[in-house]
Amino acid sequence: MISVTLIGAGNVATHLFKAFNKSNQIFVKQWFNRGIDSISQYQNLVSITDDLNTLEDADVYIIAVSDNAIANLSKVLPFKNKLVVHTSGSLNIHSLDKKHKRGVFYPLQSFSKTAELNFKDVPICIETIDKSDYQILKNIAKSIGSPVKKVNSDQRRVLHLAAVFVNNFTNQLYRIGHEITESEAAEFDLLKPLILETAKKVQEISPYMAQTGPAKRNDTKTIAAHLKLLNKKQHKDIYKLLTKSIQDTHGTSTR
Amino acid sequence: MISVTLIGAGNVATHLFKAFNKSNQIFVKQWFNRGIDSISQYQNLVSITDDLNTLEDADVYIIAVSDNAIANLSKVLPFKNKLVVHTSGSLNIHSLDKKHKRGVFYPLQSFSKTAELNFKDVPICIETIDKSDYQILKNIAKSIGSPVKKVNSDQRRVLHLAAVFVNNFTNQLYRIGHEITESEAAEFDLLKPLILETAKKVQEISPYMAQTGPAKRNDTKTIAAHLKLLNKKQHKDIYKLLTKSIQDTHGTSTR
Repeated sequence: MISVTLIGAGNVATHLFKAFNKSNQIFVKQWFNRGIDSISQYQNLVSITDDLNTLEDADVYIIAVSDNAIANLSKVLPFKNKLVVHTSGSLNIHSLDKKHKRGVFYPLQSFSKTAELNFKDVPICIETIDKSDYQILKNIAKSIGSPVKKVNSDQRRVLHLAAVFVNNFTNQLYRIGHEITESEAAEFDLLKPLILETAKKVQEISPYMAQTGPAKRNDTKTIAAHLKLLNKKQHKDIYKLLTKSIQDTHGTSTR
Repeated sequence: MISVTLIGAGNVATHLFKAFNKSNQIFVKQWFNRGIDSISQYQNLVSITDDLNTLEDADVYIIAVSDNAIANLSKVLPFKNKLVVHTSGSLNIHSLDKKHKRGVFYPLQSFSKTAELNFKDVPICIETIDKSDYQILKNIAKSIGSPVKKVNSDQRRVLHLAAVFVNNFTNQLYRIGHEITESEAAEFDLLKPLILETAKKVQEISPYMAQTGPAKRNDTKTIAAHLKLLNKKQHKDIYKLLTKSIQDTHGTSTR
């Protein structure tokens, strides 16, 4: 049994709590948040607190708060030489105060408040200063069913950056698709199977191999027709830039 | 039993043939292609030909060739007053020669040579000049398990354009994610569950509601760090443009 104390009450902390609570290999010792109200609904399941001075001994302290608050929070923790980890994709392991044994437990997934998430679909990227701490974090990840990968701070940083492209930016392309279809009272719903198929395809083959369409074929007639059809300048700019990017990748540009 | 003659041997034609061949409500009368070699492997399953003059009577002729060839091919078909449809997302129904009863049978999905596709995941967008022909095309789509939607030429055109955004452009963002992770020897595989989750999320909620991340939060510190991390100018440009697009959508831009 590994005892874990959670710090923070955002989406990551809440999803972790629920997963830990179901695991019979993890005991959530305490759950801290600055504002007790956000976690008071869980008080029958776990000891909750808003006072750092009441934190008891635990094997691991997981700080799942916003990036800006991590460094300072790790500093004001009233103990030392304990394993303290953050869950951020972009912050270096050294942003944690060096009075602690330090680590990172970064779940590479998009967490929303509502959607249920199975942790088998959440790879955990782990980094530790001390080799001996790696195994503890790995066991925690395994106990909730997550795949585990050793990832250093540089690698984690580019994974977080790439995640913005494949998640936030991709989602914005869906949004633009939604706007474009609505402009002609066509149904965005018709695009949903294509959206899913596009994501499924790269589970098996590389995005390079999966590419199709007018940009790759350099089908200038269709490209011109599409640009004419777009009303917003910003959508035209995005169309041009991503078409150019595809053509550069596949060597099909004529310019 | 509806008799169908297929014209063309690309991915769409081939996937349609396989689906029709399995359906007990469709009889594929003939399969025509200019080059007989591409379809000769199917000669035990269907009557194949490369001579338009040998085309026999069928209920529907489905032209599944490249956009550039459709108009002319419909013109040189040596018969008239038969139901002739094309499968293109971007071409108007009137690009078919008016000696025919005309229609469009547009499968809104990405077809690749290898990947198996279940037609229940392929919405068919149908348009006909004569109302009476609509039911025939609808029955064909239903017989292979596809959802059916009545879509006019203007709507189909924007669906095809939106498909480029949610499929080709999205896939290019995956590709960029691949490039970025490889630059630090991080594993693109770690992003695959996120890619799938992002696509799944918009099956249930709108892309607007699904958005998260530094652009939406206007987390200027992370945005600046990401831009610094990107090596290629083109990747920086894409990052800036899509960040701006997200901020315009969500009203979080500071400028």
